[in-house]
Amino acid sequence: MTARNAFYAQSGGVTAVINATACGVIETARKHKKHIANVYAGRNGIIGALTEDMIDTNRENARAIAALRHTPGGAFGSARYKLKGIDENRAQYERLVEVFHAHDIGYFFYNGGNDSMDTAHKVSQVSKRMGYPVQCIGVPKTVDNDLAVTDNCPGFGSVAKYVAVSTREAALDVLSMAKTSTKVFVLEVMGRHAGWIAAAGGLAGNAPGDAPHIILFPEVPFDEPAFLKRVQESVEKYDYCVVVVSEGAQYADGRFLAEAGTRDAFGHAQLGGVAPVVANLVRERLGYKYHYAVADYLQRSARHIASATDVKQAYAVGQAAVKFAVEGKTAVMPAIKRVSDKPYRWRIGEAPLSRVANTEKKLPKRFITKDGFGITEAARRYLQPLIRGEDYPPYVNGLPKYVTLKNVPVKPKLGTEFVV
Amino acid sequence: MTARNAFYAQSGGVTAVINATACGVIETARKHKKHIANVYAGRNGIIGALTEDMIDTNRENARAIAALRHTPGGAFGSARYKLKGIDENRAQYERLVEVFHAHDIGYFFYNGGNDSMDTAHKVSQVSKRMGYPVQCIGVPKTVDNDLAVTDNCPGFGSVAKYVAVSTREAALDVLSMAKTSTKVFVLEVMGRHAGWIAAAGGLAGNAPGDAPHIILFPEVPFDEPAFLKRVQESVEKYDYCVVVVSEGAQYADGRFLAEAGTRDAFGHAQLGGVAPVVANLVRERLGYKYHYAVADYLQRSARHIASATDVKQAYAVGQAAVKFAVEGKTAVMPAIKRVSDKPYRWRIGEAPLSRVANTEKKLPKRFITKDGFGITEAARRYLQPLIRGEDYPPYVNGLPKYVTLKNVPVKPKLGTEFVV
Repeated sequence: MTARNAFYAQSGGVTAVINATACGVIETARKHKKHIANVYAGRNGIIGALTEDMIDTNRENARAIAALRHTPGGAFGSARYKLKGIDENRAQYERLVEVFHAHDIGYFFYNGGNDSMDTAHKVSQVSKRMGYPVQCIGVPKTVDNDLAVTDNCPGFGSVAKYVAVSTREAALDVLSMAKTSTKVFVLEVMGRHAGWIAAAGGLAGNAPGDAPHIILFPEVPFDEPAFLKRVQESVEKYDYCVVVVSEGAQYADGRFLAEAGTRDAFGHAQLGGVAPVVANLVRERLGYKYHYAVADYLQRSARHIASATDVKQAYAVGQAAVKFAVEGKTAVMPAIKRVSDKPYRWRIGEAPLSRVANTEKKLPKRFITKDGFGITEAARRYLQPLIRGEDYPPYVNGLPKYVTLKNVPVKPKLGTEFVV
Repeated sequence: MTARNAFYAQSGGVTAVINATACGVIETARKHKKHIANVYAGRNGIIGALTEDMIDTNRENARAIAALRHTPGGAFGSARYKLKGIDENRAQYERLVEVFHAHDIGYFFYNGGNDSMDTAHKVSQVSKRMGYPVQCIGVPKTVDNDLAVTDNCPGFGSVAKYVAVSTREAALDVLSMAKTSTKVFVLEVMGRHAGWIAAAGGLAGNAPGDAPHIILFPEVPFDEPAFLKRVQESVEKYDYCVVVVSEGAQYADGRFLAEAGTRDAFGHAQLGGVAPVVANLVRERLGYKYHYAVADYLQRSARHIASATDVKQAYAVGQAAVKFAVEGKTAVMPAIKRVSDKPYRWRIGEAPLSRVANTEKKLPKRFITKDGFGITEAARRYLQPLIRGEDYPPYVNGLPKYVTLKNVPVKPKLGTEFVV
């Protein structure tokens, strides 16, 4: 058989380990020259394919590619760009296949979340119908940990570790000052639709009284009186209260707490996020001095405190994606299968994209304590292995040495414009 | 001579390495049993002395004390509690000396910032006048890096490293998404009166175009048009803009930017901090999508990414404080003296408390670029060695293993109440 080219694109919010997956894809492809000639990467994700702006990863040496394993962010650029349904915008899909055809691309690796799995699935169908069948392999990635079928998602373990470590550290700070200063500390974390990341904060504590004392999940409608009562109890009993709040925390009617914030002179809402809203509520009602932190992008880019388990899995799904491709598979995604909890064992399985696309895995009820403010033993059993192990990047002069690729463009063959 | 007891107290905002200093004090004291019988620590800082609520560090084994070296926060509790001037409240000083006398305390180690150095100085004078001279040694600590005489302050190097690393990481995240998503990222850091911490963010970049593109210092009055122009230039030239803003950033008239924020239904200002104010300004005027992070306590408790230089120096000032004490010194502070920049060499010198007390070291003008938005080569030369080296804590199950001491109380001898 003749070797064909592969196209790899990063999609959606980036993570501390999405480049480890890219590393897995490229290093493995380089070992299968008989099947895969070149790996082209989309500049800014799928947009790079639509606009025929691809990056030739062959121009990067082995050391640069290896350094992707410890470099956060998206080395080729990612995009928040969802392809519409085929009926609404057939032109996009046709354009993709046209570009793939022009560059002899027989493999499409799409590294993203729900939407991307859906897109990869559709491209596999459309390309077949168009007479240029492309093998489409979805590669899982999302800090939100909300993909179906796979036990967990690469990217989540590292943000979980960051949140658990930061909560433990900040708690020590607050406790030591509580006598005369801050009594309530609020940490806002990501997860607009699912409380996986907030739940990870719960790993910071082991014993009763340990922080966090309260977790606010999107899955549990915010009960203000119960919350305030719990804050007060915590301060009275333990001298302080640490709250981990998901950005998606909401009232029973579905309004986000973050939207309850103040408005500026122009009437624009949501100057701050949810943390200041919660913190201010505590001050108004209970009078405690507070501090709050908003981790925002720091949490998902914190490669310096990445989970070794996560890095390994991120690499492994990239590696497996290429293996699936050379085995002739299409419309599948490498999925992480948990073999056992203790000791934690996992392997890579195979999931049909049709089962992954467009479904969202929420935090199950059995992971949340009855009072709605904490995580259960079942949650700990699930979460704990995912943050295990440290995988430190190399440092030079006190700073992590992250790689910036040359990102040399592939010469366009079509040269036609396509407006995205 | 007869061995006497020592009193050690932590003061003010805690840091990632203040316990490393405690470790230096206690381990060194244990090697000088001829001079120092026991080290008592103040529960919640100086309040523990005033209320005769002291902790017997002798009840902690060598392993627990050694673990202080890698544990953030204040292991004995710290306090924001400033002793008033002697004329205003002689009773406080007399009470301190009374408690010291009752417990045969001949050495007072006060681990804090400007105010604490002032207090230690006054106690040395008052105790002498009262006929019970106590040797008072100030031990420097502050993330703000604003103490006089010492080249830098233990605690600063680690927060500087955290801010530089986080800025570098978040910048990679933002850049990879900038095509279709966030263009401007604002990171709020500590430093209400001095821009040392904000300046450290500047270490994240090496080349023109690298993040951060703008630093807002408390020392430079906020120039809104110049700021907006710079943001726009950065986005147009580099596709994104990363701003590091000090919580103390202010207008020419001294008003904090943070105060310009929104007001809630009760008219209370400052729901958010300065980051949302700056981010919102960018959106209002330039229309760019933004994200912001507020590092807050995460930055000063982040022992997981502590600077090895900082940890060494924090330990060294604790060690030197005890040496000064056994040499019979009083009213002095161990100060870090920089011997050379390249290679970075330092030693511990001696500073009279009178020279340290109540003075505040601001970021010098020569450290800020002419445009007011960046740091100079001189600043880099100064800052760079302070973040050098990694000193990772031990991990168990993916989380740092920090020590919690038993904190067994010393039996009161006076038993009289003192209201603080």
